[in-house]
Amino acid sequence: MKVGVVQMRPIFGAVEENIDRAISIIGQVSSDLWVLPELFATGYQFRLAAEARSLAEPVLGGLTVSRLIEAARKFDAFICAGLPEIDRGRVYNAAVLVGPDGLVARYRKIHLFYHEKEIFSPGDLPFPVVDIGLAKVGMMICFDHFFPEAARTLAIRGAQVIAHPANLVMPIYAQLTMRVRALENGVFTATANRVGEESRTDEALHFTGESQIVSPSGEILVSLSPTEERAESVVIDPLEASNKALNAYNDRLGDRRPGFYET
Amino acid sequence: MKVGVVQMRPIFGAVEENIDRAISIIGQVSSDLWVLPELFATGYQFRLAAEARSLAEPVLGGLTVSRLIEAARKFDAFICAGLPEIDRGRVYNAAVLVGPDGLVARYRKIHLFYHEKEIFSPGDLPFPVVDIGLAKVGMMICFDHFFPEAARTLAIRGAQVIAHPANLVMPIYAQLTMRVRALENGVFTATANRVGEESRTDEALHFTGESQIVSPSGEILVSLSPTEERAESVVIDPLEASNKALNAYNDRLGDRRPGFYET
Repeated sequence: MKVGVVQMRPIFGAVEENIDRAISIIGQVSSDLWVLPELFATGYQFRLAAEARSLAEPVLGGLTVSRLIEAARKFDAFICAGLPEIDRGRVYNAAVLVGPDGLVARYRKIHLFYHEKEIFSPGDLPFPVVDIGLAKVGMMICFDHFFPEAARTLAIRGAQVIAHPANLVMPIYAQLTMRVRALENGVFTATANRVGEESRTDEALHFTGESQIVSPSGEILVSLSPTEERAESVVIDPLEASNKALNAYNDRLGDRRPGFYET
Repeated sequence: MKVGVVQMRPIFGAVEENIDRAISIIGQVSSDLWVLPELFATGYQFRLAAEARSLAEPVLGGLTVSRLIEAARKFDAFICAGLPEIDRGRVYNAAVLVGPDGLVARYRKIHLFYHEKEIFSPGDLPFPVVDIGLAKVGMMICFDHFFPEAARTLAIRGAQVIAHPANLVMPIYAQLTMRVRALENGVFTATANRVGEESRTDEALHFTGESQIVSPSGEILVSLSPTEERAESVVIDPLEASNKALNAYNDRLGDRRPGFYET
């Protein structure tokens, strides 16, 4: 199968335009599974919770997810992407995984970063892993990368590919940590980061790009530039992520000794 | 305080000579806490369990630990080092932390690597953290680096500095993962790796050197060469590792959400 990342520069608040551009970028390259950035259609830097609320959508029946499902059908692909979700009055930093037949999985960011704590409710759903036929796909969002428990949980639940929409602003961290997440869990990781700047508040945010796809052995298969809008995909064999052996004696998950771990 | 790593090339089986050389290398540089490699005095590649047993020592009263305590007294320093430990008939891949007043902490490798599973009993003691006055020091050995739960457990138990004796043979892995362990846990890590080759069986082992000390922000403070015998120390402030804040909103340990984690 092919997995790909879409690196793009959303225009804040221009939801339809951003969706159009994402779909146009996807159309230039073939992939079976696409990962788009966190909050790819709205932009990131909400001034207030009310602003996020005004741009938030329900996952079921909302514009963004509906357009993603249309695109999934058009390209016969699965698409993971981030959006602000509204549900029963709460606004979440969410991600969906959609395919030609509709929604297949959803996630709400469990580890909120920085001002997000003032904007979003913390995730209240489990880290999801879903079998899309081609692979078992798990989802986490951006800052979840910093907590090894996130990718570990997805791996224990059987994820072969971790789809990781991101809006990274801390230099190098996620590119480094996600390589280790792939290696320590024996999974493929696909981090789709955005590029560009937002300075809608006193604080200027620079998004670092360098979207990357990493193999279970920690090999960097795809690494995009810090600035370019671009989609790239690579052929992977998800079964590589089912074999957790490092050698004839060691198994990444089987060698764990939870009785000795603090949780 | 100063923390330092000793990178050396033990001669297999030449225990007293290896201890002498370690102490001589330490004597060239000043440090308050030294980390020596895993199995620094015996060498690594035991042909059979019986061979490890014949070189194993008790921690209390054994030659290696006694010599390390003498050296700690001489240099007014704490020393962490690896040795094969025999206790009640079992042989462990162990590490000790000694100071001028004697033994302060002990550890038995929890995640055994490769043929070690045929040579050693798996560790049966908790990951240790001990306050040496200058800092709270945790210990883990070599392959423990691959399991994020090890360093996480030490950090939750209050470690400010993780002493990490190693005999690394897998390229780059630990240098990469330990940088992430330091960053994700907000601790200092000191990995003392050995250099040289051993080919006492059909399998030639090449030990990768590149011992390193990393700060809680992931900065590489010390990085030795892949081949040289050498000690190097650096001034650190252990209190940096007590502040787990990444920014005004995020805390490396406080933001964990264990209810969502698989263990």
